[in-house]
Amino acid sequence: MRGRRCLSSRHTDFSESESESESESETMRCISCREEYGTRDAGTCKECYEEASETEEELKREIEDLKAKVAFLRFWSPLDHHARSHNGPCYTDVVLVATSEDGSSGFSVPVPAHKAVLVSRSPVFKAMLENEMEESRSGTIKISDVTYDALRAFVNYLYTAEACLDEQMAYDLLELAEKYQVKHLKAYCEKFLVSKLNWDNSVMSYAFAHQHNAKQLLDASLSLITDNMDKLTKREEYIELVEKDPRLVVEIYEAYLSKQVNTAAHKDSSMK
Amino acid sequence: MRGRRCLSSRHTDFSESESESESESETMRCISCREEYGTRDAGTCKECYEEASETEEELKREIEDLKAKVAFLRFWSPLDHHARSHNGPCYTDVVLVATSEDGSSGFSVPVPAHKAVLVSRSPVFKAMLENEMEESRSGTIKISDVTYDALRAFVNYLYTAEACLDEQMAYDLLELAEKYQVKHLKAYCEKFLVSKLNWDNSVMSYAFAHQHNAKQLLDASLSLITDNMDKLTKREEYIELVEKDPRLVVEIYEAYLSKQVNTAAHKDSSMK
Repeated sequence: MRGRRCLSSRHTDFSESESESESESETMRCISCREEYGTRDAGTCKECYEEASETEEELKREIEDLKAKVAFLRFWSPLDHHARSHNGPCYTDVVLVATSEDGSSGFSVPVPAHKAVLVSRSPVFKAMLENEMEESRSGTIKISDVTYDALRAFVNYLYTAEACLDEQMAYDLLELAEKYQVKHLKAYCEKFLVSKLNWDNSVMSYAFAHQHNAKQLLDASLSLITDNMDKLTKREEYIELVEKDPRLVVEIYEAYLSKQVNTAAHKDSSMK
Repeated sequence: MRGRRCLSSRHTDFSESESESESESETMRCISCREEYGTRDAGTCKECYEEASETEEELKREIEDLKAKVAFLRFWSPLDHHARSHNGPCYTDVVLVATSEDGSSGFSVPVPAHKAVLVSRSPVFKAMLENEMEESRSGTIKISDVTYDALRAFVNYLYTAEACLDEQMAYDLLELAEKYQVKHLKAYCEKFLVSKLNWDNSVMSYAFAHQHNAKQLLDASLSLITDNMDKLTKREEYIELVEKDPRLVVEIYEAYLSKQVNTAAHKDSSMK
């Protein structure tokens, strides 16, 4: 691919008239945006442009292949199946039930699933079902402190790797993902929550990230908070956090201090 | 992104000495390969180069995300599971058995699987199992004219979307994929066989593609054959095919004729 090297046309092309070659050497035309450009704005030679285009095509083909693979591997969820038609068995062999704090399931509808899928996606379900615990014998897994909607979305994700998120659903699913060690779902929710991070939800997100061991969200919210320390102490959420979990507040101050020290050290070294 | 346009530096940069600017306008340095280039070999301006680099980074991130999704959705296969440890149940509810032509399974080892997985990957298994046919009642699906190794690889693919192919295995799996309508596997085998296509296996591949409705392989092998018509009639495989299935030979000649007509028409129009 790299056999032909970029040569200066000025010195090799004798067929052009002097005036033509003079005017052409001043500006080039960009193959991509079709605008003229000069020395200062030079990007790549033609060969490298063509190579880059080929690479892009290859990457796009790889994406198509991977998308087809995802479509093949994605399970229909027994929930979808149930919604679409009441005909045909799903071969489910376990149900999950959302329970309230006292252990009762109230009016919660059981969510059907396959042991094989649960065991494949979560090491916690694997231990629970393979060790012949109560859940395995009864075929019922009770999930506490969760709404029916969140449980349904959770099970659906285990089959399809897809979820329709809003902020509340992302918080709920991250909790479930942490509890049942479904790493892929946890990363998915965390990415969503980081994208929704703003000054108003930063303290709440920080406390939540701390509680559920969400490193990415923790770092992002902490960085946002320490950039706005002057506004922090007036906030209601701050006052509540001092009351409820002062150690988390101490960590904010420690991060702020460490940032200041780093900034000072950086200024110092750049002034030398 | 496109706010700043590519400008000629010659006309805007007055700080440089005349001689410097003169020499710089003759050749550019490519950001990518670091070689000098001139007007003739101009590729893109700096801005477009940077945009293209960003696009490439984005595509690579998308690939990483998709790969993680594939890893999450890929099932452990009950075969892997069995090989790794004899502990822990797999919750399989069906077995597949390779049988010879007379319907007996001989000494073939049954391959365990989940009805839910088979039904999810193949419309043929879906119809078979959901319509309470013999297979559903007995929990045994007999697969005729297949080796144990091919059957094992087939079931493994349904769980993992992966197979270790050589030519024979690709032929065997393509047959199974066609029979049970597993499109993803069929495309995978066809792509492999097209990549292995050469003059020696072209006639055999052509006949096979015809028999199993493999359009991609058919087109590729037919194109290879019609490019080498002068050598065709001496080949043993050709003589056999004339004996066994003369209609396929007629199709080769029809394709050859149509190619000649097209080439002639193309030459004709370019001469006008």
